[in-house]
Amino acid sequence: MALTGPIVLTDHRYGKAENRVVRFHKENARHEIRDVNVSTTLRGDFEAAYTEGDQRHVLPTDTQKHTAFIFSKKPGLDTVEDYAIALAKHFVDTVDPVSSARIDVDSYGWQRVSIDGTEHDHTWVRQGPEVRTAAVTVAGTGAEQQSWVIGGIKDLVLLKSTGSEFADFLTDEYTTLAPTHDRVLATSLIVQWRFAETSGFDWDEVYDGIRATLLELFATTYSKALQQTLHAMGTAALERFPVLAEIRLSAPNKHHFDYDLAQFGLGNVNEVFWAADRPYGSIHATLARADAPEAGIAWQP
Amino acid sequence: MALTGPIVLTDHRYGKAENRVVRFHKENARHEIRDVNVSTTLRGDFEAAYTEGDQRHVLPTDTQKHTAFIFSKKPGLDTVEDYAIALAKHFVDTVDPVSSARIDVDSYGWQRVSIDGTEHDHTWVRQGPEVRTAAVTVAGTGAEQQSWVIGGIKDLVLLKSTGSEFADFLTDEYTTLAPTHDRVLATSLIVQWRFAETSGFDWDEVYDGIRATLLELFATTYSKALQQTLHAMGTAALERFPVLAEIRLSAPNKHHFDYDLAQFGLGNVNEVFWAADRPYGSIHATLARADAPEAGIAWQP
Amino acid sequence: MALTGPIVLTDHRYGKAENRVVRFHKENARHEIRDVNVSTTLRGDFEAAYTEGDQRHVLPTDTQKHTAFIFSKKPGLDTVEDYAIALAKHFVDTVDPVSSARIDVDSYGWQRVSIDGTEHDHTWVRQGPEVRTAAVTVAGTGAEQQSWVIGGIKDLVLLKSTGSEFADFLTDEYTTLAPTHDRVLATSLIVQWRFAETSGFDWDEVYDGIRATLLELFATTYSKALQQTLHAMGTAALERFPVLAEIRLSAPNKHHFDYDLAQFGLGNVNEVFWAADRPYGSIHATLARADAPEAGIAWQP
Amino acid sequence: MALTGPIVLTDHRYGKAENRVVRFHKENARHEIRDVNVSTTLRGDFEAAYTEGDQRHVLPTDTQKHTAFIFSKKPGLDTVEDYAIALAKHFVDTVDPVSSARIDVDSYGWQRVSIDGTEHDHTWVRQGPEVRTAAVTVAGTGAEQQSWVIGGIKDLVLLKSTGSEFADFLTDEYTTLAPTHDRVLATSLIVQWRFAETSGFDWDEVYDGIRATLLELFATTYSKALQQTLHAMGTAALERFPVLAEIRLSAPNKHHFDYDLAQFGLGNVNEVFWAADRPYGSIHATLARADAPEAGIAWQP
Repeated sequence: MALTGPIVLTDHRYGKAENRVVRFHKENARHEIRDVNVSTTLRGDFEAAYTEGDQRHVLPTDTQKHTAFIFSKKPGLDTVEDYAIALAKHFVDTVDPVSSARIDVDSYGWQRVSIDGTEHDHTWVRQGPEVRTAAVTVAGTGAEQQSWVIGGIKDLVLLKSTGSEFADFLTDEYTTLAPTHDRVLATSLIVQWRFAETSGFDWDEVYDGIRATLLELFATTYSKALQQTLHAMGTAALERFPVLAEIRLSAPNKHHFDYDLAQFGLGNVNEVFWAADRPYGSIHATLARADAPEAGIAWQP
Repeated sequence: MALTGPIVLTDHRYGKAENRVVRFHKENARHEIRDVNVSTTLRGDFEAAYTEGDQRHVLPTDTQKHTAFIFSKKPGLDTVEDYAIALAKHFVDTVDPVSSARIDVDSYGWQRVSIDGTEHDHTWVRQGPEVRTAAVTVAGTGAEQQSWVIGGIKDLVLLKSTGSEFADFLTDEYTTLAPTHDRVLATSLIVQWRFAETSGFDWDEVYDGIRATLLELFATTYSKALQQTLHAMGTAALERFPVLAEIRLSAPNKHHFDYDLAQFGLGNVNEVFWAADRPYGSIHATLARADAPEAGIAWQP
Repeated sequence: MALTGPIVLTDHRYGKAENRVVRFHKENARHEIRDVNVSTTLRGDFEAAYTEGDQRHVLPTDTQKHTAFIFSKKPGLDTVEDYAIALAKHFVDTVDPVSSARIDVDSYGWQRVSIDGTEHDHTWVRQGPEVRTAAVTVAGTGAEQQSWVIGGIKDLVLLKSTGSEFADFLTDEYTTLAPTHDRVLATSLIVQWRFAETSGFDWDEVYDGIRATLLELFATTYSKALQQTLHAMGTAALERFPVLAEIRLSAPNKHHFDYDLAQFGLGNVNEVFWAADRPYGSIHATLARADAPEAGIAWQP
Repeated sequence: MALTGPIVLTDHRYGKAENRVVRFHKENARHEIRDVNVSTTLRGDFEAAYTEGDQRHVLPTDTQKHTAFIFSKKPGLDTVEDYAIALAKHFVDTVDPVSSARIDVDSYGWQRVSIDGTEHDHTWVRQGPEVRTAAVTVAGTGAEQQSWVIGGIKDLVLLKSTGSEFADFLTDEYTTLAPTHDRVLATSLIVQWRFAETSGFDWDEVYDGIRATLLELFATTYSKALQQTLHAMGTAALERFPVLAEIRLSAPNKHHFDYDLAQFGLGNVNEVFWAADRPYGSIHATLARADAPEAGIAWQP
């Protein structure tokens, strides 16, 4: 099949990735910190830059960088979601060729240093590995304008030492795995949730609530498979937060293999494990409310 | 907006990621090596595993791992594309609940060690950082079966020391960037191309040809922007290889900033640069033949 | 200078690196977790393996791996220091050619999942990025046997938003830096402390105390330079823990640059910063008690 | 043992790490590139900065950064070793408190893009993963001045598909490894060589020669253990390059495990392997000429 049709530019986008903005609030002696990694992505009428090298519609990515920093000052960076909405809206509203803007934010956690039980005013220790994420898309202007907000968490590493099995699975000629009724379950979660609306509630409260829900369900669900655990986590998040339209969960199955100590005359009743790197199982699930508003371009990168 | 509709599992998939298969061919004294990282992803009738923890339809990811290794022996691993097609087809054809299978392969390059100009029979040195990629999807069985092959290259780091400018761009109140008519252009490319068919030509020959084309156009295109360079690279690849339906290019703009030596009484006419890490521009383009066959689920992860 | 003397094997060592041992204690419903990365290094009479390929003195690294896992079961893995001492002693005491053994342990932190304020019995969430480290060396047998224990912490990321300056520094013809009396101070610490003895106190208590001391001094020291801060941290640790012989601190100066918002008509009084990646300052200090016992081969890798 | 002696600052150093200097030579249409990562480390009379926060002796790391860039222009950056010598000498000779300076350089390889067999004048593709390294130390001034140069290579990944065994090793109660007379041998080498002098020969020629020697000996040595292979590589390098005083080799044993295909009714005569990540053997050797000049502080970080 030798194709001969004209060659068409079918999609394109550009932006500035990984602007490392650190914003302090110092109105009081007790400072506040926002430590974020911001990426901007613009879509719109930029074809001529590709086809002819014509930059007249292209706002430099250097300008986008400036804007990401500027907006942390004014209108400001309190919640990452409101900051990202304002930034996305700015590009769509003021830069003519832009038809839609997406802002991705990673937000790093810091814990105040405590000295003899008292929190310090301006010193923190980094918390991780988990990272809070947000992805905001704004498209169109005026009455036509639409916005989507996706919240999330990544690198949330969870482990339970019992309460997990894997048995009664399908087998074929290449299956050697023995069923087990007690194993370690561990994963490093990436979860994203799409909001049904973009204001009228407390972003941080919802984030904390979803995080607590994910942890709780991971702990309390007797797991017949990681699939089931993900489903339970996602369902509970949607049930408890009716402002959520949809939730996507990606989870590596971080295998912990029983170390064979019997060959050395020692017992090992699920006490000693080898934590393997690769390969790993990879499980994904998306759950949505049947009455959720359309996702539109919310998930477009 | 408090959503109250039923919660639905709208998408799911699972598999075994990053099986590090190394396959030698030793029929002759001159050995051959294939060094690959293989990930399997299955879609199909697996809902019950999520909703009820019922594994009866779930082929263990451990079995998928075995199969990835087994298939490197038989039918074998010569070209990564044919290997991936066979593996994907196996899952769809023999595992009843599977509706589609995707196989992702990273293939690492090795160069024979040369001793006084003679290539050694069984010793290699790793070549990189670039990695050859393939993503094969097979869906359906029998006469309905469809296959898609996406070839690619990633971590292909290119740099040119002149022949690049960035000027006459859009400005706004936050723009401070000075136009330049001579700059360093550097990127670390991720390129993927979708084939219009899945047999009837030499996979390795096409790969080598596309890689050479990408390098050539990067070098010879006078660049008014990375956008234009990507467009030129993609267009040339589609033009020269009519078996290609579509090509996607992702490119960080790895900024090299002129170091200000004038402040120290030294000239610096584009000789001394600071190679920055973050932030970086991020440019994306997709080009397709107008008469390309449908992509179907080829790009679904 | 053309050297013609005989070629001598002047140093050698070998071992098994990065054994990922996960050990649970399940005597009670409330499980305990120890998640460690263990590396073994043996020195001794292994020359013939190098010079003649004679393996008769070489205990396979595979055996060392087994031993690392076995010892987590028996004698057991409660504190990483005692586990490492037992493991090192085992190699020196029972493997004839071994003259000294070093065990390096990275220990990963896990926090119990809390549900409505109640800690879960067998589910944890990973804490980081900081990692507790230990490096134990045992040399010789019988009455001649010597042991050294080095405790430590790495990837401890600290930041203060004020209380730091850098001024009155040396200048030369290439100095352009402006002095500052209020800046962000941030670092990712690697600290190691050598113990004066290897028993008779509580390893975990000392670890917690040193960590708290490092955080406290970072917070409360008005910093005229990162050098001064490191010195204050190290001094306080030695003062408060007389069981410490020596402490080594390595600290990148993770630069946070004021973002120039004045050019956009906005003030920025140390509120908005760009967190840079590279280059970074790199500061190192070692402090010791004058009456500390000899380090011997404690710091040999 | 409660130590009570005074607390002493026993060692300290500081500098600017990872200055990413890219230097082009554009005298002719055929440009040349030098792409390096430079770290500076100063030792000397800096105690007061630690003990009192007195910066009067401290040359800012920002100035050291400038100097690294400036010196790539003048005196220039042709060979990394001469560049590093000049830079180290500058700090020792012109900055009074400095007693010794160490310059570490990683040098990244670039290959010219070839178009129809013709090399392009100003476009390159990155070669790797291997990296050339240099570590230069200069101490003292005037007639007392001493210099040491350490060359090296890192991330040199080598693999041979046969010609390697591991047998007749020491066993103990925990040994289960079966001897093998045909296995895959693979490693990612870090090698450093200390020069007996610092001028009078061609740095690049020696580098190319040592690299070729390492590859040749890895290929042609029938390996009874990685130890033996390292010894053969190091010995040959010292023999062929009498300007070398000493060579240090560090090598992970990147295990490739035979995949058990017999359980699936398939043969596998060293054809199909699983490339494991962790744990890995870790082998180290240092060889030196008996008449080598003293290392002094050459290996001090």
